[in-house]
Amino acid sequence: MPELRKDPIVGRWVIISTERADRPNDFQVQHVERGNSFCPFCPGNESATPPEVLAYRPGHPNPNGPGWQLRVVPNKFPALMIEGELDREGHGLYDKMNGIGAHEVFIETSNHSKELADLSPAEVEALLWAFHDRMVDLRRDARFRYVLVFKNHGEAAGASLEHSHTQLIALPIIPRRVQGELDGASKHYESKERCIYCDIIDQEKRESVRLVYENEEMIALAPWAPRRPFETWILPKKHISNFEDAGRGIYPAFADALLTVLKKINKVLGRPPYNFTLHTSPLQKPGLPYFHWHLELMPTLTKIAGFESGSGFYINPSPPEMTAAFLREADVS
Amino acid sequence: MPELRKDPIVGRWVIISTERADRPNDFQVQHVERGNSFCPFCPGNESATPPEVLAYRPGHPNPNGPGWQLRVVPNKFPALMIEGELDREGHGLYDKMNGIGAHEVFIETSNHSKELADLSPAEVEALLWAFHDRMVDLRRDARFRYVLVFKNHGEAAGASLEHSHTQLIALPIIPRRVQGELDGASKHYESKERCIYCDIIDQEKRESVRLVYENEEMIALAPWAPRRPFETWILPKKHISNFEDAGRGIYPAFADALLTVLKKINKVLGRPPYNFTLHTSPLQKPGLPYFHWHLELMPTLTKIAGFESGSGFYINPSPPEMTAAFLREADVS
Repeated sequence: MPELRKDPIVGRWVIISTERADRPNDFQVQHVERGNSFCPFCPGNESATPPEVLAYRPGHPNPNGPGWQLRVVPNKFPALMIEGELDREGHGLYDKMNGIGAHEVFIETSNHSKELADLSPAEVEALLWAFHDRMVDLRRDARFRYVLVFKNHGEAAGASLEHSHTQLIALPIIPRRVQGELDGASKHYESKERCIYCDIIDQEKRESVRLVYENEEMIALAPWAPRRPFETWILPKKHISNFEDAGRGIYPAFADALLTVLKKINKVLGRPPYNFTLHTSPLQKPGLPYFHWHLELMPTLTKIAGFESGSGFYINPSPPEMTAAFLREADVS
Repeated sequence: MPELRKDPIVGRWVIISTERADRPNDFQVQHVERGNSFCPFCPGNESATPPEVLAYRPGHPNPNGPGWQLRVVPNKFPALMIEGELDREGHGLYDKMNGIGAHEVFIETSNHSKELADLSPAEVEALLWAFHDRMVDLRRDARFRYVLVFKNHGEAAGASLEHSHTQLIALPIIPRRVQGELDGASKHYESKERCIYCDIIDQEKRESVRLVYENEEMIALAPWAPRRPFETWILPKKHISNFEDAGRGIYPAFADALLTVLKKINKVLGRPPYNFTLHTSPLQKPGLPYFHWHLELMPTLTKIAGFESGSGFYINPSPPEMTAAFLREADVS
């Protein structure tokens, strides 16, 4: 008998097909591969991107020159524009504002042939510090309410360039799904005076069936009501609502957890395309007692039926207890 | 300058890239085509599906035999099971219920080589009547709260069989996005005592720039804040919250509007894959003053970046005023 499961934070119901139970080999994975065409993110082509806003380039002092390990540059085709005053306007029933915002690209490595899962722990930690540094810088800009950090890996997941990169969009609004999480978590806190994510971590540690990986500071798990097969969340064990204030000690542990989860996913699913999104509290609301930053990762395995994003109703052929077991047991040491 | 636009019903913000403004030829459309393999939906293969729950078979009295124009059968691989008592259960923090529900398939035509857009107005009207008949039947079952009617057309839109069909899922819960619409519309009604969809229709008729098509009873438009290029809504002009009580007079007009919109989309975009979802009020709540049934249609044109469904934040490269103009001006008479 299939199950209907409810996400405890946002209240979304998902059908979990317990019988069909698609296993890793049931998916037609579009393995991510690399080609050889001109790449604007490769060393030597620095002038093909807008000038960098941040770079880690030890021993090489010249911006936009070679010798970098990681570069952050404005998106050449930005979805939003950084210059201008925020202008809100009504239009009959409707609301709009001009598209002020930042749209930046983190070039994670100078090596075109490596994907994020192939980097060293120190390189992944540097990427997390770059998220931190850019968020701290952007939150000084009073026009912005939220910074959305996300990665599209592989063409089927929406990546238009193959050189490994993550993106950031700073927004003058709070995205709806983030607001839904904030509202749901706040409601739980009102009635229980506890953070719902802390409660989830407690229950998942006790039950252990949906556990994917943990280290001292971080935990990775398959959520109770996943939208897609192999959806995985990575959370800090200690309560803190915003990523950029998580503290120096957490980044090595987060790098370890992220890298381990990506390697496990690559091992079990054969280098699939994926997306991840960092969920953190709004810029002007740090230190919330009810919200808990985390990362949500989804491999691209099933055809996306538009009706799912249209209706907000998901059918997931793989129970999280099964996907968690596959990932937990995959040896990537 | 790009624009940030807010959907007035659910409050979702969308980035509309007014500069880039992808035109119909900018998309790599995966044109929908037909093959020749065995089809369980073709006449003569009636025994390959579960026994029909409804069929229009003028002059041919035998169920599950030939001579039909339209058949409705249970899905052979249902996401939910029709038999059993509804059993709700807590699990620590979490909620679940057993997967009770109906999952049915409307085989729209006996002709394998035709898609919905190729059918006659009378055939499309028959399909709408079949939706009506199944909804009226299913709402007698007290276990069900909502009937979701949706179509995945073409492989890229999630269709696993190519013979033209629509699906229905009867659910013991109300899908989250439907609930979001009900909440948003109800809030508007509380403050204005008007239906927000009626207000939208008024404004769209006045402005006409997002108008795609209208006849006496129905209107088709590009919404103010579309998630995807060429997203199109079809609404009845007269206020009514539930599809199955829309009244006999509306179905010929709805068939005309749906058929015209599909032909226009095929003409402008070259037979793209698409999804549509019928939005209607919950089964036990007919006659709502604040909700207004309608159909939402989205061609599959862009790579779906999972981050969009993950974050609830959409970037749409095609302004609705542009897509509406292309569709409005496409001559399909």
